Amino acid sequence: MQYRTEKDTIGEIQVEADKMWGAQTQRSVQNFAIGTERMPHEVVIAFAQLKKATAKANHKLGKLSDAKMKAIETAANEVIEGKWNDHFPLVVWQTGSGTQSNMNMNEVLARRGNEILAEQNSEEKLHPNDDVNMSQSSNDTYPTAMHVAGVLAVTETLIPAVQKLKATLAEKSEKFDDIIKIGRTHLQDATPLTLGQEISGWKHMLEKSERMISESVNYMRELAIGGTAVGTGINADPKFGGYVAEFIAEAVGSEFTSAENKFHALTSHDEMVYAHGAIKALAADAMKIANDVRWLASGPRSGIGEITIPANEPGSSIMPGKVNPTQSEALTMVAAQVMGNDATIGFSASQGNFELNVFKPVIAYNFLQSVRLLADSLVSFNDHCAVGIEANLDVIQNHVNNSLMLVTSLNPHIGYEKAAAIAKQAHNEGSTLKESAVKSGHLTAEQFDEWVKPENMVGK
Amino acid sequence: MQYRTEKDTIGEIQVEADKMWGAQTQRSVQNFAIGTERMPHEVVIAFAQLKKATAKANHKLGKLSDAKMKAIETAANEVIEGKWNDHFPLVVWQTGSGTQSNMNMNEVLARRGNEILAEQNSEEKLHPNDDVNMSQSSNDTYPTAMHVAGVLAVTETLIPAVQKLKATLAEKSEKFDDIIKIGRTHLQDATPLTLGQEISGWKHMLEKSERMISESVNYMRELAIGGTAVGTGINADPKFGGYVAEFIAEAVGSEFTSAENKFHALTSHDEMVYAHGAIKALAADAMKIANDVRWLASGPRSGIGEITIPANEPGSSIMPGKVNPTQSEALTMVAAQVMGNDATIGFSASQGNFELNVFKPVIAYNFLQSVRLLADSLVSFNDHCAVGIEANLDVIQNHVNNSLMLVTSLNPHIGYEKAAAIAKQAHNEGSTLKESAVKSGHLTAEQFDEWVKPENMVGK
Amino acid sequence: MQYRTEKDTIGEIQVEADKMWGAQTQRSVQNFAIGTERMPHEVVIAFAQLKKATAKANHKLGKLSDAKMKAIETAANEVIEGKWNDHFPLVVWQTGSGTQSNMNMNEVLARRGNEILAEQNSEEKLHPNDDVNMSQSSNDTYPTAMHVAGVLAVTETLIPAVQKLKATLAEKSEKFDDIIKIGRTHLQDATPLTLGQEISGWKHMLEKSERMISESVNYMRELAIGGTAVGTGINADPKFGGYVAEFIAEAVGSEFTSAENKFHALTSHDEMVYAHGAIKALAADAMKIANDVRWLASGPRSGIGEITIPANEPGSSIMPGKVNPTQSEALTMVAAQVMGNDATIGFSASQGNFELNVFKPVIAYNFLQSVRLLADSLVSFNDHCAVGIEANLDVIQNHVNNSLMLVTSLNPHIGYEKAAAIAKQAHNEGSTLKESAVKSGHLTAEQFDEWVKPENMVGK
Amino acid sequence: MQYRTEKDTIGEIQVEADKMWGAQTQRSVQNFAIGTERMPHEVVIAFAQLKKATAKANHKLGKLSDAKMKAIETAANEVIEGKWNDHFPLVVWQTGSGTQSNMNMNEVLARRGNEILAEQNSEEKLHPNDDVNMSQSSNDTYPTAMHVAGVLAVTETLIPAVQKLKATLAEKSEKFDDIIKIGRTHLQDATPLTLGQEISGWKHMLEKSERMISESVNYMRELAIGGTAVGTGINADPKFGGYVAEFIAEAVGSEFTSAENKFHALTSHDEMVYAHGAIKALAADAMKIANDVRWLASGPRSGIGEITIPANEPGSSIMPGKVNPTQSEALTMVAAQVMGNDATIGFSASQGNFELNVFKPVIAYNFLQSVRLLADSLVSFNDHCAVGIEANLDVIQNHVNNSLMLVTSLNPHIGYEKAAAIAKQAHNEGSTLKESAVKSGHLTAEQFDEWVKPENMVGK
Repeated sequence: MQYRTEKDTIGEIQVEADKMWGAQTQRSVQNFAIGTERMPHEVVIAFAQLKKATAKANHKLGKLSDAKMKAIETAANEVIEGKWNDHFPLVVWQTGSGTQSNMNMNEVLARRGNEILAEQNSEEKLHPNDDVNMSQSSNDTYPTAMHVAGVLAVTETLIPAVQKLKATLAEKSEKFDDIIKIGRTHLQDATPLTLGQEISGWKHMLEKSERMISESVNYMRELAIGGTAVGTGINADPKFGGYVAEFIAEAVGSEFTSAENKFHALTSHDEMVYAHGAIKALAADAMKIANDVRWLASGPRSGIGEITIPANEPGSSIMPGKVNPTQSEALTMVAAQVMGNDATIGFSASQGNFELNVFKPVIAYNFLQSVRLLADSLVSFNDHCAVGIEANLDVIQNHVNNSLMLVTSLNPHIGYEKAAAIAKQAHNEGSTLKESAVKSGHLTAEQFDEWVKPENMVGK
Repeated sequence: MQYRTEKDTIGEIQVEADKMWGAQTQRSVQNFAIGTERMPHEVVIAFAQLKKATAKANHKLGKLSDAKMKAIETAANEVIEGKWNDHFPLVVWQTGSGTQSNMNMNEVLARRGNEILAEQNSEEKLHPNDDVNMSQSSNDTYPTAMHVAGVLAVTETLIPAVQKLKATLAEKSEKFDDIIKIGRTHLQDATPLTLGQEISGWKHMLEKSERMISESVNYMRELAIGGTAVGTGINADPKFGGYVAEFIAEAVGSEFTSAENKFHALTSHDEMVYAHGAIKALAADAMKIANDVRWLASGPRSGIGEITIPANEPGSSIMPGKVNPTQSEALTMVAAQVMGNDATIGFSASQGNFELNVFKPVIAYNFLQSVRLLADSLVSFNDHCAVGIEANLDVIQNHVNNSLMLVTSLNPHIGYEKAAAIAKQAHNEGSTLKESAVKSGHLTAEQFDEWVKPENMVGK
Repeated sequence: MQYRTEKDTIGEIQVEADKMWGAQTQRSVQNFAIGTERMPHEVVIAFAQLKKATAKANHKLGKLSDAKMKAIETAANEVIEGKWNDHFPLVVWQTGSGTQSNMNMNEVLARRGNEILAEQNSEEKLHPNDDVNMSQSSNDTYPTAMHVAGVLAVTETLIPAVQKLKATLAEKSEKFDDIIKIGRTHLQDATPLTLGQEISGWKHMLEKSERMISESVNYMRELAIGGTAVGTGINADPKFGGYVAEFIAEAVGSEFTSAENKFHALTSHDEMVYAHGAIKALAADAMKIANDVRWLASGPRSGIGEITIPANEPGSSIMPGKVNPTQSEALTMVAAQVMGNDATIGFSASQGNFELNVFKPVIAYNFLQSVRLLADSLVSFNDHCAVGIEANLDVIQNHVNNSLMLVTSLNPHIGYEKAAAIAKQAHNEGSTLKESAVKSGHLTAEQFDEWVKPENMVGK
Repeated sequence: MQYRTEKDTIGEIQVEADKMWGAQTQRSVQNFAIGTERMPHEVVIAFAQLKKATAKANHKLGKLSDAKMKAIETAANEVIEGKWNDHFPLVVWQTGSGTQSNMNMNEVLARRGNEILAEQNSEEKLHPNDDVNMSQSSNDTYPTAMHVAGVLAVTETLIPAVQKLKATLAEKSEKFDDIIKIGRTHLQDATPLTLGQEISGWKHMLEKSERMISESVNYMRELAIGGTAVGTGINADPKFGGYVAEFIAEAVGSEFTSAENKFHALTSHDEMVYAHGAIKALAADAMKIANDVRWLASGPRSGIGEITIPANEPGSSIMPGKVNPTQSEALTMVAAQVMGNDATIGFSASQGNFELNVFKPVIAYNFLQSVRLLADSLVSFNDHCAVGIEANLDVIQNHVNNSLMLVTSLNPHIGYEKAAAIAKQAHNEGSTLKESAVKSGHLTAEQFDEWVKPENMVGK
């Protein structure tokens, strides 16, 4: 292995010769051999977008030369295109301000930028701190990158995933709109509804969650950039933050603004707690949907069995022919993960002190993991399960016919108490509801037939 | 003790003679001797508002007589005024649909309503199910009461509490706007800011949280009422839900509407997860503010000591003269409680099955506890601590003067690396920054005085 | 209302004349008008036990006179007997060291002790700090009371509750040991087992949890007492802590010792995190058991319906004759609460600084709530549900007979792949397993009858 | 890319030619494109150990030939050595029973085993299900692998990490045993202790946690193996589970036994909730230690500054010369992560149904992540921070000398109230305690010097 000597204010250090990073990144590699969780890729990309924008803003403010600005821009674009993926080796478990990941980006862009400048025979030379990090601090760049990464992940992956499943459920809801089935509350037989109505409840969950996530994530469109070290904007022009937000918005095609209060922006992550709360609401809904699907599909012979779902793989290594609701299982495990991530984010957001919260990387990691897992698992659940849901008409019909809770239709006619007596008698004697009703003497067979019609009980 | 015999569809049961409740409430008292946590008072009151509104709606729809409607209304108003507080004995840990608390209200209103009707020599008689619960199910009334209670608790107690502390912090921020103090990031000395700026960050946290809570709680303004047993609205007129929402809105002076999709309204509590996420964001911010206050007030001789807070009580049972930041402690304990409540709410919301989620009372209990504790503790923190915050000017001045991080001002003049060397030398030698700077040869004493001015470093 | 003037080192304050508490308690009442959650009664009782023990220890060490010791002892016994319940008005949300509750006890005991001394015409007079709090600090007394309260609550209420349900399940397991039923994995039909075996799994959960809780709570038997203000034991005799632990152990009939390292005892609550982790494990198990019970009892016509449970109350306010698994619902809501409490406890335990953790009351509150709710709800579940579980033999038999997963028995004879083909064919054709097996040609009808016997598949 | 055709009971599927896995693994790759979190390596290794042991057990029971057993053993050893790391591509978010990871191992071992058999010109051929999975089900193998992986990770990485830091702290505690410093409670100055005593509290936290983790993880030494599909042990010899546990124990050098109740073993993960509760207690302690370290090292000029810690890297990208407590930050972020993981584990463990809990992979993932992160970060904190902690004697001495809380020594001589007055007067007048004491007239200067000696206040 070949090494070159790099240097920072602490001193010299050896770096593998083919790596683009510098001394501070190398120190972090050595000082934080903790876990395997890399700084999320989404954050790295957002950082590159940010550095491109800061270079342009500094240039616009007359603080950075044309050549330097363009060198940084080109280098940043290469990072965004994925050319230097292997040169961001740092893990989540580092400085709580993300300083080392900020410096990792500064070092890679400075080194690559200097190569570009050299190719152009320029005499200018980029310094990681003085040029690439000009007018910035880790304290405002990291939260900026975290917000940009979060907003883009939500709007570009999670929202489309929710919409995809929502569309499938809308279609199923319409398709099954005439299938009357038994309702269940407390797991016990209740009054009927249509399978389409039942599924419309699932669809509406996604609709609500989508709206809540979209609204709440808007708070993350405010960026810390411009606050620099402690929120006062020391060493940055007052116009800097606004310029950067505009350049980022333009580059990624999504709205961003400079945060109103930079002291807040460095120390509070209430927006991420809030937005992840909406994501947790989605996880809770997803858990409910996935559970309903697997319970309705339970069986094949001794379960509820009112729907069937696709058989994607052998279900068991020992029981031949078994088919399991594995997509539901993956989705519910993801929901459980999101619940825990939410606890970590809330905890972390509460631990700021004075001018900084130093739990930023763990917040970003958990937020982005939740988004990624939910986006992926909703798509997977849609493609490999929801699209293939079919109604099992025989079972559904059978359940409705046997139901005692059709008795509820009698309340307006004979009152709750007499109706209850009829249902109980049918239950105890194992008879049909009609038999019991007629036997009670409170109504005739004809009245029963007129009053107790499942199709009149579903509110349509 | 005197008893009377009550009866429901299960059979007869003895109830203390002076209690207004009936058989089903009594069964719950006996069957659920669990804990001491009563169904939150806010839910009871909301239930009374709801029953008044349902009586009016049924009357408007021609299903309930004038006399019955008025008897229910009068009885409900008495409950709202607190006349029957001791007649709602049920605990949170009961049926997960809150059926027993719905029946408790039905029974009390029917009994009290019948007393009123009897006083009027009316021959009409209210039945808890057939009249007071007409067109309703626990499955739509409980979530309706839970939403109404939650919205009112948030808007009438929590939001005003946030606003109160926000106003105090705004005043302090303005008052201390010229006091330049050292900044701290990673708990380490950083570049300066004003005490007013520091406090503006706290104020902005409350501003953000207030907005997030207000927005998110709006989702809870959609009411389940009208969905009855399973969401289809069986036994209720299609117009019923809308009427009830209007009557409630009118009575409590706050906007409410009938939920768009009743299958969602009975099974998903995503709105409460979402709104409580905003409340958790406030708790995280409150934790940060309370921590900053106690750390800044730490000492009196061996801490940071930049502010003083009121001494409200002897701090120690063994150390004479000790004063402790007790309001911060109460507030941070509340924040810890809210974190746990959030976990319970998320968990519970995920556990719905088919047409019902049967974790409603535990969700309501935790949501309302969070609101109550935060509202109370923010007011307490405001009144007994924040209003009395004073700046300790000597200490503040001393800290700024000694700071090495004023060196940051030199970056644009001599670059990051030389500046770093100056700061390190000062640190190692225990010298002032100016001594070290001049000794470095990179700048003159005059330049130092011109470039390093704390008042120029706070971005104003 | 009559008042008397009380005084502490802050100054004078008015207290209602009929209250036994003094100035510091009164200040807390006024300064902490937060919520309704009183300091748990268990903590108050443990504090009284502690003060009795400290009086004896101080007396034994020659620091407290006979008369004073006895006056404190008598007063403490009255508190333990419940005579002064209304004189401990403080809420959880106070000083994080519980100083105010320590002083509340010191004040009540001093006042009551002085009445006793006065009755004896003694000239001695108790001072809340100098006598009742002698050799103590809130910093060591509160965690001591918290540990004593926790240990006693667990051993005297929770463990017996677990044992009670365990005994019921053991009996049911034995009773149903011969009933062969279908197994279910992934909610899908699987190979058979007996109902007794299924229930033995529930019983074993309680057995395991009981052992884990009992073991882990032992760590809480180490008491902080003797550490005083910061753990050094200032103003206390080195033998004091040991004496107090012995006196407490003797009085309550349970083992307690003086903590090995008092610096740990004041700042770390790892033992309570640990013990509550075991309690959470019980909650998770309870959730599983309660869910199994309600699913197995689901129906009555369109669910799984393999067992029946007692009908304790009308299940629905709108659906006549409905019976719901309400005891399961209460227990699962309790489980959800315990999950949240666990989050609060872990968070709080992590927030100590230097010589003290100031989240003690919120830890005690959550720990004791979990214990109380689980103890009560397990007993309720036992008495009102588990004891009445009956097998629904027809349904059980029917499910076994129809099962396709009996095919698993064929693996050793014809291999997994052929067995899978047989099961799938039966599923697709709606035929019995035997028909499909014979049709496959891989075995004869006789072989099928010999190899596929449910009674040989349950491992007994 | 070259492909080969693989086949399972669902049908044919294409697999990349150079991959060792088969059809079922391939289906999982395609059906579960969710996230990037691979099944933890520790689980893969434990699975290989398990399959080696099951082959030996089946051989011992006469069910598997010599050649087949040896082929499986050799292949499994190669997996353990890391030779086939790239052939286990599956993610956590799959079937909740881990079936697909079980089959992945079965397929790789069968394929590699068949290569070995072919090299030996054997005519025997391994089938993934019939041979490698003989006498097993995913339902008992996955929880077995999860327990083995968890126990080994804890005992081989986490416990040694705890011990390493404990040893360092023990050394520091001894080294600093004579340095008297001010104590702090509620962040406020309190009575003195030695720096060694303070650190002994940290050390004792690790001691306690170590004991709790070691004890609790013992419950995980019980293995599900032998329970097969539903706990009855269908298709396995009754002696099989015991044999396998012995073979595993022998191979890995750690004790394991066959679980007493297999129905419990498949459905309850109370042991992992419990053990992770102990791990959370460690995380809470680690948070406290890391916080103390960074607060004590805060400054350098305007903080507490009583200790110094190593400067491992430039602390700031904008503030030259800044040094931050980055190891504390990494450790506290890990603690936050463990808190969230604990929530996920508790949630998941509560979600079992009937004969199986299908949240196993997410439990294993979170448990092992916690262990890995804590082990790594404790070692990192030890090596890069704790070993370099030095006392800042000037600051420490200064703080003790100025302290007002030395007044506590006067309690036994003049009582709490007079002592309080002296301390308050000193505070208000900015005088020394001695000046104020003498001025009070309650004691002489000589008495003060005799009674107030910090060295007599630390309990040694």
